[in-house]
Amino acid sequence: MYIGRFVLAGRTPSGRPFLGYRVSSRSFPNRRIVLEAGTAAVLPLKDAPPTDNPYISYNCLRSEGDIAVVANGSHTDPIFEKVCSGYPLRDALALSLLALDYEHDSLNTPRIAAAWSGEVALLGIVTDQGLLVQQICAQPGHASLIATYGLTRPSEISVGSENVTDLAAEIYSLPYSHPVAALAVLLGTEGGAAVAGPVRS
Amino acid sequence: MYIGRFVLAGRTPSGRPFLGYRVSSRSFPNRRIVLEAGTAAVLPLKDAPPTDNPYISYNCLRSEGDIAVVANGSHTDPIFEKVCSGYPLRDALALSLLALDYEHDSLNTPRIAAAWSGEVALLGIVTDQGLLVQQICAQPGHASLIATYGLTRPSEISVGSENVTDLAAEIYSLPYSHPVAALAVLLGTEGGAAVAGPVRS
Amino acid sequence: MYIGRFVLAGRTPSGRPFLGYRVSSRSFPNRRIVLEAGTAAVLPLKDAPPTDNPYISYNCLRSEGDIAVVANGSHTDPIFEKVCSGYPLRDALALSLLALDYEHDSLNTPRIAAAWSGEVALLGIVTDQGLLVQQICAQPGHASLIATYGLTRPSEISVGSENVTDLAAEIYSLPYSHPVAALAVLLGTEGGAAVAGPVRS
Amino acid sequence: MYIGRFVLAGRTPSGRPFLGYRVSSRSFPNRRIVLEAGTAAVLPLKDAPPTDNPYISYNCLRSEGDIAVVANGSHTDPIFEKVCSGYPLRDALALSLLALDYEHDSLNTPRIAAAWSGEVALLGIVTDQGLLVQQICAQPGHASLIATYGLTRPSEISVGSENVTDLAAEIYSLPYSHPVAALAVLLGTEGGAAVAGPVRS
Repeated sequence: MYIGRFVLAGRTPSGRPFLGYRVSSRSFPNRRIVLEAGTAAVLPLKDAPPTDNPYISYNCLRSEGDIAVVANGSHTDPIFEKVCSGYPLRDALALSLLALDYEHDSLNTPRIAAAWSGEVALLGIVTDQGLLVQQICAQPGHASLIATYGLTRPSEISVGSENVTDLAAEIYSLPYSHPVAALAVLLGTEGGAAVAGPVRS
Repeated sequence: MYIGRFVLAGRTPSGRPFLGYRVSSRSFPNRRIVLEAGTAAVLPLKDAPPTDNPYISYNCLRSEGDIAVVANGSHTDPIFEKVCSGYPLRDALALSLLALDYEHDSLNTPRIAAAWSGEVALLGIVTDQGLLVQQICAQPGHASLIATYGLTRPSEISVGSENVTDLAAEIYSLPYSHPVAALAVLLGTEGGAAVAGPVRS
Repeated sequence: MYIGRFVLAGRTPSGRPFLGYRVSSRSFPNRRIVLEAGTAAVLPLKDAPPTDNPYISYNCLRSEGDIAVVANGSHTDPIFEKVCSGYPLRDALALSLLALDYEHDSLNTPRIAAAWSGEVALLGIVTDQGLLVQQICAQPGHASLIATYGLTRPSEISVGSENVTDLAAEIYSLPYSHPVAALAVLLGTEGGAAVAGPVRS
Repeated sequence: MYIGRFVLAGRTPSGRPFLGYRVSSRSFPNRRIVLEAGTAAVLPLKDAPPTDNPYISYNCLRSEGDIAVVANGSHTDPIFEKVCSGYPLRDALALSLLALDYEHDSLNTPRIAAAWSGEVALLGIVTDQGLLVQQICAQPGHASLIATYGLTRPSEISVGSENVTDLAAEIYSLPYSHPVAALAVLLGTEGGAAVAGPVRS
């Protein structure tokens, strides 16, 4: 089953909050996730064919303290900045998704996002037919997932990993086709992000 | 089962688009729906005890041509005005619900709305935990309903009435407790609205 | 000169932050401002002729702690609630004015607002042709004013009153025609609001 | 005088509507404007030093029929898309500027935009202290200009060029320092855009 990009928000079995993001792609597999302090970016591989597609490269993670946002496009930044300015998570997601809207490509690809702020986690999606921003009830060992295709409503999965490297690998291995790279972030920890994917540079 | 106020969007058995709204209330039953051209308002009965509650009186319908909006509060007007100014229905609902937000009463009562514009129908709700605006697939003889309590996600019901007076009565009689008054609107018809409720003035 | 309703934000001669609002009206002079804790409302006089105009009655003040908002319509409440939820003042004004928009009366009367939050003061206005939200530099003994007609850009005036009762009277007496009632609020003080106007009930 | 990037909306001496944009930059002069059908992009020169700055490359023009938008960043696209979806120009500018906000660089560089839709032209700017969206009265031979620094309120200039190539050159030559490249667009014309700048590739 191909569900495109997807985001997750949940808790590890011991209850620690985390976010996840997986790039899955049929059209642009030559990409990777590059991790820096408080940021991760989806970028083309150095030997990828050039493209004019404006949706290929973007920050997919912004985090600081107990705030973190993952998303499948350029809305990552304004969501994060609005939360840092004081907006409730709900409002930061809703305003950014409404303004930036679905991607105007041939599939009207939705924009999706997941975020934690303190003890509150939300998922969001905007499609050509609607907008959903929804707080989730994150139980230990569970996560809610939303994807660009097919699973466009929150669906729950169980999660077994406790450390961030294993989490990234677990997200990379979820049984949806065309994985490219995966990211996991543990909230409130130093160096709390990890990337999983095939060994390419 | 008490679900508070609710809105509906659907099609009659012959396929004509309609909207519905029912005031259900435990705290403020002394109200009625007053119908005028292109507008309906929820107002206190003339002998109702005075109240300072700012959420008691409001336009619950605005309509013109093939655009109509029903809602449970003061967001009816900006949604309608934004659609008339050119906004897609989705955006008019999302922006108005985001800005006006749930009611800041003791229950954090959600704001809800239903709307038709041309061949497109949507439902919307904002709660303290999320925002949903969703296009619905309206089959003849069916409607989607969203309520302030309990049924806060779209749920489908079947509808048997063809004319607007019967529709209003059918909505009034839906098996949810504490009905106060109901409204039905048939799109694209002259004089296409009707109110049902106990005989009071 | 008739400039309709106007709002002010400024500082008294000793530097204390205040807001002001004056109802000026040719069409609906039979109104008053009613003050309660944290709120003030514009309401018809008890003997005023009944009207269907939806813009006649509204909260014109909401305040709590070092946050206060004055405005000429129903946008007072969402601006205040968004600031209380964490929005920067700028964003609370911009979103509410954009969503609720100018009044759809025969004059397309703008919505205006003034607000303080901590040490920051802003004015805002939405007209059928634009939207302005602007931080002001409030010097002791000065205020910035914005009005529904004519003075639709911030203009500075000087202010001589130090206590709130005198301030309300000073605002009531500003040389613009058709005064109905005026309100002043001193930030960060108990009982810090006062109303001025002709003695009517 | 250095005023950074600036946008213009106006009319040629014979009354034809146009937009203009000039990249002026102290920090990133190694850039150019690349023109395609309905789009123009600001891009680094091929031999420019690599940078992580996310504000360097962006579409600075989107146009179709009698709608055109120029801007100094990634807000060009959502403004254009919202107008195409039916939003009034005013609302498309206000929502996009509010959501994407000023640039979070060391200068809090404002986002600016200019747009025409039919016979209506607007300028917009969002800074860390305010938001302005304003319809302009475009007289033949005149334009209104707004810039990221200094001239952050609309100011009027006169314009002498009639064809688009001359217009681009005239905008490039405006007496503000550090020009990098300039763009002019004539509304409602085939091939109606031109770029001016030093001969570099």
